[in-house]
Amino acid sequence: MPKISQRGGSMPASPIRKLVPYAEAAKQKGINVIHLNIGQPDIFTPEVAFDALHNLNLKVIEYSHSAGNESYRRKLAAYYRSIGIDVDHNEILITTGGSEALTFAFLSCLNPGDEIIMPEPFYANYNGFATLAGINIVPITSSIENDFALPPVAEFEKLITPRTKGILICNPNNPTGYLYSESELKALRDLVVKHDLYFFSDEVYREFCYDNHQHLSVLHLKGIEEHAVMIDSVSKRYSECGVRIGALVSKNHQLIETALKFGQARLSPPGLGQIVGEASLDTPPDYFISVKEEYLKRRDFLVNALNKIPGVTCPQPKGAFYTMVKLPVDDADEFCRWILSDFNFEGHTVMMAPGSGFYSSNDKGRNEVRIAYVLKQEDLAKAVMVLQKALEAYPGRTTGR
Amino acid sequence: MPKISQRGGSMPASPIRKLVPYAEAAKQKGINVIHLNIGQPDIFTPEVAFDALHNLNLKVIEYSHSAGNESYRRKLAAYYRSIGIDVDHNEILITTGGSEALTFAFLSCLNPGDEIIMPEPFYANYNGFATLAGINIVPITSSIENDFALPPVAEFEKLITPRTKGILICNPNNPTGYLYSESELKALRDLVVKHDLYFFSDEVYREFCYDNHQHLSVLHLKGIEEHAVMIDSVSKRYSECGVRIGALVSKNHQLIETALKFGQARLSPPGLGQIVGEASLDTPPDYFISVKEEYLKRRDFLVNALNKIPGVTCPQPKGAFYTMVKLPVDDADEFCRWILSDFNFEGHTVMMAPGSGFYSSNDKGRNEVRIAYVLKQEDLAKAVMVLQKALEAYPGRTTGR
Repeated sequence: MPKISQRGGSMPASPIRKLVPYAEAAKQKGINVIHLNIGQPDIFTPEVAFDALHNLNLKVIEYSHSAGNESYRRKLAAYYRSIGIDVDHNEILITTGGSEALTFAFLSCLNPGDEIIMPEPFYANYNGFATLAGINIVPITSSIENDFALPPVAEFEKLITPRTKGILICNPNNPTGYLYSESELKALRDLVVKHDLYFFSDEVYREFCYDNHQHLSVLHLKGIEEHAVMIDSVSKRYSECGVRIGALVSKNHQLIETALKFGQARLSPPGLGQIVGEASLDTPPDYFISVKEEYLKRRDFLVNALNKIPGVTCPQPKGAFYTMVKLPVDDADEFCRWILSDFNFEGHTVMMAPGSGFYSSNDKGRNEVRIAYVLKQEDLAKAVMVLQKALEAYPGRTTGR
Repeated sequence: MPKISQRGGSMPASPIRKLVPYAEAAKQKGINVIHLNIGQPDIFTPEVAFDALHNLNLKVIEYSHSAGNESYRRKLAAYYRSIGIDVDHNEILITTGGSEALTFAFLSCLNPGDEIIMPEPFYANYNGFATLAGINIVPITSSIENDFALPPVAEFEKLITPRTKGILICNPNNPTGYLYSESELKALRDLVVKHDLYFFSDEVYREFCYDNHQHLSVLHLKGIEEHAVMIDSVSKRYSECGVRIGALVSKNHQLIETALKFGQARLSPPGLGQIVGEASLDTPPDYFISVKEEYLKRRDFLVNALNKIPGVTCPQPKGAFYTMVKLPVDDADEFCRWILSDFNFEGHTVMMAPGSGFYSSNDKGRNEVRIAYVLKQEDLAKAVMVLQKALEAYPGRTTGR
């Protein structure tokens, strides 16, 4: 039997993968598992998206341009310009989700063995794209005590080696919900200029900023046009996770041309998803107003309720729809397993993403979990109640006993 | 300005890319460019596919399972069983086109620097996937004089090194239209067993076999269940190139599980394309009968007409909808450029894919072109007429002057 490749063997599993069998077993026992672990919003996809499919008038579903349909790229560029990002359609590559945008960025900018610095905790699938591309992630720890603010730039600078090719942030952040400030972004801008690095910014949660905080894109920054690379996606913005449409956006034309060669090898991004993505740009503004109101309500409820549980700490996220929560337990991986396999409250239990999976450094985030507030408030209320009762009963509880 | 990666810089361009500006210029001059260079069929997509979209009744376009919707995989497995391929849904990974299936196969089975042997001429984008994965393609030349039959297995064996991890064929073949025989496949079967190699078979043109020739899948072969890896796609079968839905199929469960980890990193294959692909499995059989009749008519016309041109040789393809054609010119790359830039017959010219782009060995295929017969017969007739007149006028013509 021929062997699997070493890189295939070392592909990381998702932080929740090992919990899936326990969740399945709980469901088999008739227990209702409330999923706080997923980033699949329950928000309805805009009507204009479905209208485009219902009214589709084609005879052949053909390949599109490898960079994506020009009509879509032009309309997307107009949307970016409407939020102060000065790009044209030739500076946009439509990709198969934000995932492919990140993969093309890594492949185009880094050679195997090269390094990219990113604040941790970070979106766990960055590990997978790094393994695929054979590059190394160098983490710099941000802290829950500090609401996961950007670590001082001097700390980044200490990690720069001849193999460092870029810095990556996710803004607003998955998993922390942190929104980077203008001064933080400008500090990173100066750093990437000084060391001639790429500045990758994953901005797929752009629309989800709360409390009148303004989102600042890496493409808003002046003087780093050749350094700045933005990753985007329609998945969260329009609740269209399934269409797999993203974008790689940069004013560095050499980068876009290089990424396009990877795009040409795979022929084109999904055609039906592009039709949906283009139509969705006509989503009426009140859609976003009501969606934001809904998330804000959920966030305020969740964060408030969590902080009332003895020993639990939950910072106030300024964006996205996740929050990292510190629990009074010695091992959140074990607690997340236990709550599924050994606990329920009135027939309910919860599935959460253990924090350790979002850290690259060993032994970080051991008492943290990521919670997504993509469920209705009544489900969140039930989930918080389950969590509170579980913490009271958990043998590995470290404080408040 | 930060540098592009070496691998990004070395990503190969498509064989026709450099011709595109000449085709554009011809169109600007009002010349009708007949495209013999593309693999985009003009055949209509089945009605059942569009019905599925017109009747779509969803509220949220959600992520699917990373391996693809289970309902789709089950139905696809039933289709495979109906053609004598014994697989179940857990042995299928739905991918973003055949392209992603190949990429996942390379990443999962080969480490950077490993080798894969494939008969040339081969589908040019294999070069791109190999560059992405950092692996080396070792070509073994098949010859137009021999209708592009499989080279003797002894020739394969000479190329095997400790870094050889697999053999790849495309069957029916793009670009040659060759259909591998049972004895050829069995010879390769014995070889992969002897040297413990993977046997990758790209079978996206399975439905397009002519003259009562039967297609034999790598998964029909007995005794190599752990070695055999099949790549599939809906693109050509249902004229759905744009939906980007393919499949990686193998009874090697370790391979499928490894490829799934790459699949989990990118979350899911395109959701709307999966809906279309699943619905298309209900395409009525008479669709394929009429499509095959149409291609057969085109092939017979084209091959016959080409072979009547002095100095032109065109083997009879047994499958797919391409043929490699030997022209009486000293440099087909140059001829393909010249016919676009310097020639037209009654306002028409043709765009062809230069043969050299399908060979990995230097200086092979220099007097060959690939022609796709995805156009109506009247357009093919016009194209052949243009080609004949062009060859009469071409300064670099080598014979028959």
